[in-house]
Amino acid sequence: MGSFYSHWRIRVVNELSVEEAAIVLLPDHGCSIIAGDRGDSPPILRRNGQRQSSSCKFRETEVMAAKDRFHAAVRIALEKEQWKITDDPLRLEVGGTKFEIDLGAEQLLAAERDQEKIAVEIKTFLSDSPLTDYHAALGQFLNYRLALEISDPTRLLYLAVPMVTYEVFFKREFAQLSLERYQIKQIIYDPIQEVIVQWIP
Amino acid sequence: MGSFYSHWRIRVVNELSVEEAAIVLLPDHGCSIIAGDRGDSPPILRRNGQRQSSSCKFRETEVMAAKDRFHAAVRIALEKEQWKITDDPLRLEVGGTKFEIDLGAEQLLAAERDQEKIAVEIKTFLSDSPLTDYHAALGQFLNYRLALEISDPTRLLYLAVPMVTYEVFFKREFAQLSLERYQIKQIIYDPIQEVIVQWIP
Repeated sequence: MGSFYSHWRIRVVNELSVEEAAIVLLPDHGCSIIAGDRGDSPPILRRNGQRQSSSCKFRETEVMAAKDRFHAAVRIALEKEQWKITDDPLRLEVGGTKFEIDLGAEQLLAAERDQEKIAVEIKTFLSDSPLTDYHAALGQFLNYRLALEISDPTRLLYLAVPMVTYEVFFKREFAQLSLERYQIKQIIYDPIQEVIVQWIP
Repeated sequence: MGSFYSHWRIRVVNELSVEEAAIVLLPDHGCSIIAGDRGDSPPILRRNGQRQSSSCKFRETEVMAAKDRFHAAVRIALEKEQWKITDDPLRLEVGGTKFEIDLGAEQLLAAERDQEKIAVEIKTFLSDSPLTDYHAALGQFLNYRLALEISDPTRLLYLAVPMVTYEVFFKREFAQLSLERYQIKQIIYDPIQEVIVQWIP
């Protein structure tokens, strides 16, 4: 699958060092490592060995490439567990609303194993704010779950979350409260090893 | 408040003419009218009287200016109905999560009248996809409502929706189902007249 690089993002917000880590898989395009120091000192970001200023954002093309890679990783991870991918993307239409023209939202895939049918929303959490990414993921999840209840009620919807985002963001108290309140089934995946680490039904 | 212009967006998706309308308020900067033909013919978009190609997107600065204007319009509309704006933005912190550093999300404002306390999420729906905007608005709304339940349980949360978006998008069957399922209280506002057209509790 070509090479990839690891990435640590560090933001300083209100004098609190907010550390976030994400591992991004990209085809080789000359980038190597972006690294940041932990702790109370100001973050030091490096890209291709060069020290960066206070932030180091992804380029749009990198985000798109990473999205494709994460998507492929989840597909492969499901297939390793004997799921058969049946629809990628999964097309839905409910009450005159076509969900495949839902520009900017994550596309779902559908899979089956024995008598089980699932749909998976694959989220990469690559923006500067995992909370804002989670708002968007939650709203999309709840709208798609509602659409599935009407059009395909035996199919269970899961939110696929990268392992590092799960550790860094979803274990916080508020995120746990929200996941529980809205009954969000999750698949925690490792985008590098291309395996599912945990099913949270 | 300076001048403003009206705007009609028209997208052609899968040979279906999907029409969307939005009214945008901007300080005078030389733009006048963007208009599109209705019906089955290909859309004709004009900006400053000049015919445009197939799409005519907002510039980032226009979106930011429009956001500020919509925000100001809702404030003024609430004040016209004797609400007192008490917090703009409203700051929340629950379980270690500070919502004011929620980059990219809409900021809430808080208002009071007599014994009533509300919080309002002001959404502009300016992207190419009102459905994707709605996912983000819904997720943010539900997370903020959950945060308010914990930190300020007597305050009711409303989603402020521009009148035209309400007519064009929210009256569709699926959007109605979703609003009802997730019990989203709405304020429908007219951003030009700066009035609240309807409260949907």
